[in-house]
Amino acid sequence: MELIRSVAEAQARSDALRAQGQRVAVVPTMGCLHAGHLSLVEVARRHADVVWLTIFVNPTQFGPGEDFERYPRTTEADLDACREAGVDAVFLPPVEEMYPAGAQTSVDVSDLTRPLCGKDRPGHFQGVTTVVTKLFLATKPTVAVFGEKDFQQLAVIRRMVRDLHFDVQVVGGAIARESDGVAMSSRNRLLDPATRREARVLSLALEAAERAVAAGERRHAALLHLVTLELEKAPHGQLDYAELRDPESLEPAPAELVAPTLLALAVRFEAGGGAVRLIDNRLLNPHPSPEAPPCS
Amino acid sequence: MELIRSVAEAQARSDALRAQGQRVAVVPTMGCLHAGHLSLVEVARRHADVVWLTIFVNPTQFGPGEDFERYPRTTEADLDACREAGVDAVFLPPVEEMYPAGAQTSVDVSDLTRPLCGKDRPGHFQGVTTVVTKLFLATKPTVAVFGEKDFQQLAVIRRMVRDLHFDVQVVGGAIARESDGVAMSSRNRLLDPATRREARVLSLALEAAERAVAAGERRHAALLHLVTLELEKAPHGQLDYAELRDPESLEPAPAELVAPTLLALAVRFEAGGGAVRLIDNRLLNPHPSPEAPPCS
Repeated sequence: MELIRSVAEAQARSDALRAQGQRVAVVPTMGCLHAGHLSLVEVARRHADVVWLTIFVNPTQFGPGEDFERYPRTTEADLDACREAGVDAVFLPPVEEMYPAGAQTSVDVSDLTRPLCGKDRPGHFQGVTTVVTKLFLATKPTVAVFGEKDFQQLAVIRRMVRDLHFDVQVVGGAIARESDGVAMSSRNRLLDPATRREARVLSLALEAAERAVAAGERRHAALLHLVTLELEKAPHGQLDYAELRDPESLEPAPAELVAPTLLALAVRFEAGGGAVRLIDNRLLNPHPSPEAPPCS
Repeated sequence: MELIRSVAEAQARSDALRAQGQRVAVVPTMGCLHAGHLSLVEVARRHADVVWLTIFVNPTQFGPGEDFERYPRTTEADLDACREAGVDAVFLPPVEEMYPAGAQTSVDVSDLTRPLCGKDRPGHFQGVTTVVTKLFLATKPTVAVFGEKDFQQLAVIRRMVRDLHFDVQVVGGAIARESDGVAMSSRNRLLDPATRREARVLSLALEAAERAVAAGERRHAALLHLVTLELEKAPHGQLDYAELRDPESLEPAPAELVAPTLLALAVRFEAGGGAVRLIDNRLLNPHPSPEAPPCS
């Protein structure tokens, strides 16, 4: 497995692979790899000849008071996991390589970054779109794979790719879950055992909403009420948001669900060194049958 | 000469050329080509195997009340000029190709875009960096050539390319001038003959400053005074700015010039349908000899 630390080297390597007709897939990560990331490597493998993974804890996507310093860093274990997963190369740039002295360029997506996580984390998505642009231009991939847990991030990146004309196919990978249903996240390990158990409320709330929709519930307000009741079962959790939105535009869903709708949750848990914010989401489908929805 | 109208076609064409080991140079323009643009084509030819020129009057770089509607459009003549100059392909996308429905992504360079033209034209450089990013990702050039008349634009694009890791060599082309010294610009033709004659004050002011520096003048204030006196000789001109700045950081030059310094001018002239803003610049070198500057 190759280890690439400079942008110039990444570009030269990717150019050489493309010149040989190889398709390069990249899986951008902030390291601290878990089975969720490795499932994205599997997705990448299905779309390309060569799989690269990038590890870069991007300072610009953490706001003041967020957990940049505390964000877990486990580089040696990450590289072992990559080797085992058959990753072909890891791009592991130092921060001064990604943000050269005097750097002052940023990439912004406007409307899609305003609601949900954008409301709680000003500047977060600008950091994400800026660093993903840099990573794309450094690694020149054919395909890029992002997890669906960060649903809004995936929607924002798809929009950016379309708007700026990146010649990159963006692929989403399904949410990987722990045995108790909690969405895998590098931040889970920051929770103490009791709070970690409480974190189940997110996936339980999603399941409750899904069951309700399957049983015929279509009312926006009723579904959110149900979800909120579930989330309130975690004494150490504080709700950041629970929202029903259009999965592409991220506009608020109508009062009655008529089309596949994103249910997105964010809950802040108390932890030793500060709050840990967990997110989860599910697409609720009011017309799960293969037939077209009946005309109203 | 090829005519390319879609992004997908441009990307496929550029990929095919690169796969054959060809270097592609691109000359981005807003059309209304004059000898200045064609001199950039010559520069491009010296740096690449294949020369593309893009014609796109970019709406997002014109502010409200600016001359987007009036900006001269001469596509047939432009294509003839390109054929004659040996351009290999012209990328001529419709606006909905460059800005797809719902587009909401922008690219920003911060510090470098604040002074000079950035002060007078809020949003202008965001439009430029956004469209140049799109043009680069659409045409995938090895080299891109921009005129030095838009000195600040060139500095901003160099910074953007370095910050975002575009694998593109940015080359500046010297200012082309009319026989009376006026810098070539598509906007010159919007002036009536008398005002067009007055436009000479910009290049005359630059020459006066250059002569003064050659004669030993180093004082920032004295040089600007001299320049302002020259510019005031145009009764229909109104000074937007005359400034001495560091040519890379665009920070204000010190009170005494010690290093090569940018003298940048912008003057607004009265014209039929509204104001016409002309810019010009020169690098003033207080140590023109090949020897190193003496220690002070």
